[in-house]
This record gives sequence, structure tokens and C-alpha cells, in this order.
Amino acid sequence: MEFKFSHIMDNVRPSEIRELLKYASQPGMISLGGGMPNPSSFAVDEIREISDYVLENYGPLALQYGNTGGYDELRKQLAIFLGEMEGIRTQAGNIIVTTGSQQALYSVGKILVNQDEFVITESPTYIGAISAFRACGIRMEGIAMDEQGMRTDLLQVSLEKHRTEGKMPRFIYVIPNFQNPSGYTLSMERRKHLIDLSADFNVPIVEDNPYGHVRFSGNHLPNLKSMTNDNRVIYLGTFSKIMSPGLRIGFVSADESVVGKINLLKQGLELSGSTLTEFIAAEYLKRGIMKRKIPEVARMYGRKRDIMLKALEDSFPEWASWSKPEGGMFVWATLGGRINTSKMIARAIENKVTYISGASFYPEEIKYDGMRLNFTFPSDDDIPVAIKRLASVIDMEVKAIEVSR
Amino acid sequence: MEFKFSHIMDNVRPSEIRELLKYASQPGMISLGGGMPNPSSFAVDEIREISDYVLENYGPLALQYGNTGGYDELRKQLAIFLGEMEGIRTQAGNIIVTTGSQQALYSVGKILVNQDEFVITESPTYIGAISAFRACGIRMEGIAMDEQGMRTDLLQVSLEKHRTEGKMPRFIYVIPNFQNPSGYTLSMERRKHLIDLSADFNVPIVEDNPYGHVRFSGNHLPNLKSMTNDNRVIYLGTFSKIMSPGLRIGFVSADESVVGKINLLKQGLELSGSTLTEFIAAEYLKRGIMKRKIPEVARMYGRKRDIMLKALEDSFPEWASWSKPEGGMFVWATLGGRINTSKMIARAIENKVTYISGASFYPEEIKYDGMRLNFTFPSDDDIPVAIKRLASVIDMEVKAIEVSR
Repeated sequence: MEFKFSHIMDNVRPSEIRELLKYASQPGMISLGGGMPNPSSFAVDEIREISDYVLENYGPLALQYGNTGGYDELRKQLAIFLGEMEGIRTQAGNIIVTTGSQQALYSVGKILVNQDEFVITESPTYIGAISAFRACGIRMEGIAMDEQGMRTDLLQVSLEKHRTEGKMPRFIYVIPNFQNPSGYTLSMERRKHLIDLSADFNVPIVEDNPYGHVRFSGNHLPNLKSMTNDNRVIYLGTFSKIMSPGLRIGFVSADESVVGKINLLKQGLELSGSTLTEFIAAEYLKRGIMKRKIPEVARMYGRKRDIMLKALEDSFPEWASWSKPEGGMFVWATLGGRINTSKMIARAIENKVTYISGASFYPEEIKYDGMRLNFTFPSDDDIPVAIKRLASVIDMEVKAIEVSR
Repeated sequence: MEFKFSHIMDNVRPSEIRELLKYASQPGMISLGGGMPNPSSFAVDEIREISDYVLENYGPLALQYGNTGGYDELRKQLAIFLGEMEGIRTQAGNIIVTTGSQQALYSVGKILVNQDEFVITESPTYIGAISAFRACGIRMEGIAMDEQGMRTDLLQVSLEKHRTEGKMPRFIYVIPNFQNPSGYTLSMERRKHLIDLSADFNVPIVEDNPYGHVRFSGNHLPNLKSMTNDNRVIYLGTFSKIMSPGLRIGFVSADESVVGKINLLKQGLELSGSTLTEFIAAEYLKRGIMKRKIPEVARMYGRKRDIMLKALEDSFPEWASWSKPEGGMFVWATLGGRINTSKMIARAIENKVTYISGASFYPEEIKYDGMRLNFTFPSDDDIPVAIKRLASVIDMEVKAIEVSR
């Protein structure tokens, strides 16, 4: 028989990241495409020791069904972690563990937004948020960014317009630190402005902070959740970039009513997460390994960022521009409107280098000249080679365009 | 601020199983409520050894992001497992790993059904399927069961009616073996009838088989998927009952188009499952531990079923009736329409015993006199004590009703 699929799935497109995976393993290929942490950042030995400890001492519990909300000890440890590292005053009852922050993104979309409603995001924004929100069947409106992050002046104009029209967005989704894909960080002034707007227009904020701990230069800025005592900020965190993505430990810190609804949804989505990996993560926090590892990871990624920025300086054309992120995993390069990076990707693959095309990151009006370059996964030696290859691919592309004119 | 939640969440109710968890830990309480495997069935030592082996030899891979579809070696091993144990001829490309079969249930609901459409289920049916389908915003029509499983004669009448009205269900959801909650098994004759109806009316079947391997008496019946070469059966499996629910390893074997759509949805739901637990499950299969453990688990549960059936015989009133499952985890008792088990639960908790009320399992027209009794989790000694307590609770309830008349 031929299966008929639901309409909602028509909007869900395969992620370019997933599509490019098949090329990543080709011999000689250097991928700047994925958003993967460097495997050398994983505390493999410690996790191995902890896994053994957990199974020896808590085996029957760690292999049994867990709480939908997450292992109690993990939520307790998370509350301490958020207090110490983020200045977020919270407690276990305001925290729910999710299968990566991807599940948190899907869940906030699902519980807060009806299908004829919309949310506001940065433009460009995280590809996984786009895929989660599309799977929820909800619309996105993108607000442009600059080096200071989301243009809150434009956000204000948009919110005023929507208030006049009587249709408000259900939340504002932001990645304030070293945003994915742009690498930009929301300035202090704009953080304040954003919170004020959220209060004035009564629209909650979904703050996604996967990279906040991985800062290698500049000064730490407080996260939005810690800047207000109000409950309007729903905070999304994850251990994917600072411990291991393969354990799928994400979490949400939010108002109890929000945590309760996510819990209810999670019962339908997966019943509960992996008890074993939740036990491992709790013990990892308890032993203080997280705190010790984070600066190590930040140092390694800072070095890789420097290598990439230098390589770009050395070999990219002077009409191209790129962000200089103070943390995180990505540089965002734009090719001055001259080149469609979605088309260029075929030539890049031929030349043994991949990236993610800018077009993948736009919630609505698409721009085609951007590219996201990951610097955390490739080796120090591979980064300049990859950038040089890309520069020559750009050069070929420019010439091909000139010839075809 | 006060959060406004989406309408779809209005239909999603907390599962009684989750609600009762807080009582399960009270001193002296015996829970017949959950659907948990007995922790003594877990191969803790072997899993500990495998976890250590995986982290020693594949650490950086097992802690990294995995494929959305699941670890390749696991899907390969699953194809072998399904061939050897189930007579299902399939291959890795027709299999997707899910976070428990709960995620598979949510996914089939989401990809195959629009919000104004409906599916057919057994009545009563699995509480987790109800919560998944409700979270998808889809309606359910229940078909009554007897000792031979779903009444396919009634199914036929229903399908004919729907065809006349021009609105067909998008799939038929069945648990053919030792159904949850009833413990009934779909007879061979009805399996054939169901497959014929599916073909005649062009409606796919979603076959959920979490307990099929745990048979302790009677003859193995072929699963629906293996009974047809057609692609119309979507098969859902899980390792939660035969290995460990805490690893969250479920899977779907289906037509490539279905697997592809679930993959696309899964990118939005959670990006990928836990790589670590997928590596562990693959190695567990590879080493042949699964095959060795399954008969052990079946023997243990068979013994517990016998103890429960004898206790029911000894102490339940003669006007009550109950199923005699040949496998699985549950006995379904009905109290002849005399007692509302949802109301009785408070008295049961007072008397240190819990069960799940029948009302929780009905997709639409609710009956109130049923109760699901789990025999796999409690100890051999606790089972007769719990049943005796329940019998006296029933006795008290009958007297209270008589007094109030």
C-alpha cells in the first residue's frame, strides 16, 4: 500500500546537517558542517568510571523506568549547578530533564502555541528550533540581528504592530550567547530591553543557552533568567556541549505550570528519558567534574576559534565578512550577496570541505549568501586547510558566475 | 505572568500510573499498579561489563551525537533479532530506533493522522497509546475485546460503516500478544481476519508487540508483520520488558517511507537518541545475551502469574472475573459492573495496595468496573498479600455501597 502522511509533516524538511553526514565520512573530507563538540573534550575515563559505579551501586534502579520529570538527584544537582554557574535561583521542582534541548524546544512549541499562532525568533536562528517548531505546525517571524544580537528596536516595532492587529506571538525565542549560527552575543543593553519588552507586551521569553559556559574571551553577561525575578523566562540548558551529546541530557528551568505541562507532554512523547544516562550525569555533577572540565573545553575551543579567524583573514576574499564569536562553536560568514551558498555546496563537497548553507537558518525570508562554519569538531591542523579549500571554492564560484553572465 | 497553554494539551490528562508513583514508596505499600519489569530480571552484571567495554573501545563515538535513525550496528542486530525471533524478514533500512516504544506511538500518530481524523484501537487499550494519541490531537474509536482479543467482527462492521460515510480510520492499533491491560491474545483466526480487513479496506495496522517474547504457556502465534509480505503492518518493538526500560530502546520496523517520515519527525523531537545506550543494546544483542535471558524472564513471570491466579482464585469474590494471560505482565479483573474501581482506589491505598483503575484504559466509552493487576514487579511473597488486601477492599466497598442505598 502507499501511505498517506499527515499535512503537518509537509512542512518538516530534512536538516541539511543530517543530509551532509553521508559526505562527512568520505576520505579526505573536512567537515565544518555539523555542530558537534570535539570528542577529545569528552571525559571518557571519568564517565567510564562513573558508569561502572552507577551500575555497581544502583544497577536495578538505573536500568528501571525513571520519573518522567527526570531522576530526582539530577534535578537537585541541576538546581545547584544553575545557582553556582548561572546565578539562577531555582529548585528541583522548577526543573524538568529533557532528551537534549531539542526535546525542550519541541515541548515549548507544543504546549504554548496553537497551530494558527506564531512565535518570534532571531533571524537567522538555530536549525533545530526551526525543525521543532515546524513539526509543531507553528509559524515563525524572524527579527534581524547584528553584532549585538537580536535587533530589539525591530522587535519593539514588530510587537507594537502585532498588538495593534490583536495577534501576539506566543513567545520570543533567543539564544543570547554566541548564537547559532551567527556567533553573535546579545549585548547587556539589549538584554535589558528584551526583558522590558517581554514585560510590557506580556510575551514570555524562551532562552536557549547551550553555549553560555563555553566563553573564551570578553566578559560573562548574565543570562536573561537571572536578570528577572519574574517567571516570564523559560530557560533551556543542555550538557551536549560541555559533557556529552550522546547522553541526551537537556533540561528546562521554568515556572511550575510550564514544567508541569512539559511533564504531561513528555509522558506521551517518551514516558521517561534514559535513567542510566541521568544517573551518570547526576554523579558527574556531584563529583565536580563538570566545573573542572568547562574551562578546559573553553580553552580548547578558544584556540580553534583563533585558528579559524586567522585562516579566514589569510585566505577569504576581502569582500566577505564574518563574525568574531567570544564563545560557542560557530563563525558565520557572509559573501556580500554575491554567492548562493546553497548552490556552492556541491562544489565544496567536490573539493573535500563542507559547511552549512545560510539558507537553512532562516525562519522565513531567506538570505542565500551566509555560511555556518564550525570550528570545534575539526582538528587544529584541518581548520586552515578547510578554510583555504573554501576560499578557492568561493573563487571558482565567482569565476563561474562571471563566465555565465 | 500567567501562562496560556495550547488547546491540544487540554486533552492530555496525567496518567494514573504516574500519579500513583508517589504512593508506591510508602512503607508497606504493595503496588500492582505500574507496568514495570522486575529489577531482578535485569542482567546488571552483563550490562555493566558491556558499558565498560563500550566506553573503553568506542568512548568518543558512544558519547557523541548519533544518527537520528539509530546506531547502524544496532539496526543491523535488530534486523537479525527480528528475523530469528519473530520471523520478520527486514533489514536495517526498514528499522528506526526510538526512545522506547512510547516515542514510536507518538510518531505514528503524528505522521499518519491529521487532527480531524481518527484511529481504531482495542477497547480497553494501552494507557500510553491513549496519552500519545491525545497529545497528537487525534480521536480514537475503541473496538471491544473478548478472550480471543479484538472482536474483528465488530471491527468489520465499523469499517463498513466508515466506508459508507467516507471517513476511514488512518490506522488500526493492536497489541496482539498478552494485551495491555487485558492480558488477552489475539487468536490465529482473528489475526487472519484482521489482515484481510486491513487489505480490503486499505487501512494500515500498527502492531505493538512489547510482550510477545514473554510467553509462559500456550503456543507461539506469528506476529501480524510476519503473516503478510505486504508493507501494511507497522511493527513496534521494545527492549523495555526483556532487557531494561531505563535504556529507552524501542524500534519500528516498517515500510521505508514510514521509517523516513519518523526519522524526519525525530529530528525535530530529539535530534537523536542516546548513543551510549544504543551501543550497549547492540553489544547485548551481539553477545547473544538477549536470547539467553528471554526464557529466564518468561519463567520468572510465569511463576508470578501462577501465584497471582491462585491468589485470585483463593480470595476474590466469585462474581468477579479475570483474564488468564499466557504471557506478558498483567491480569485484567472485572467486578461485574458492581464497583467503580476509580473510586475504590482511595480505599485501596489506605489498605496499602494499588492497581490501575479500568477507566484509564478506555479510548472513548468508559467502563468503571475493571482493574489492571501487574504481577511482574511485586515479589512472589507480596502477590498473595496484595490480592488478599484487594479482596477485602472490594468487600468493604460492596458493604459501603449497600449501606449507602
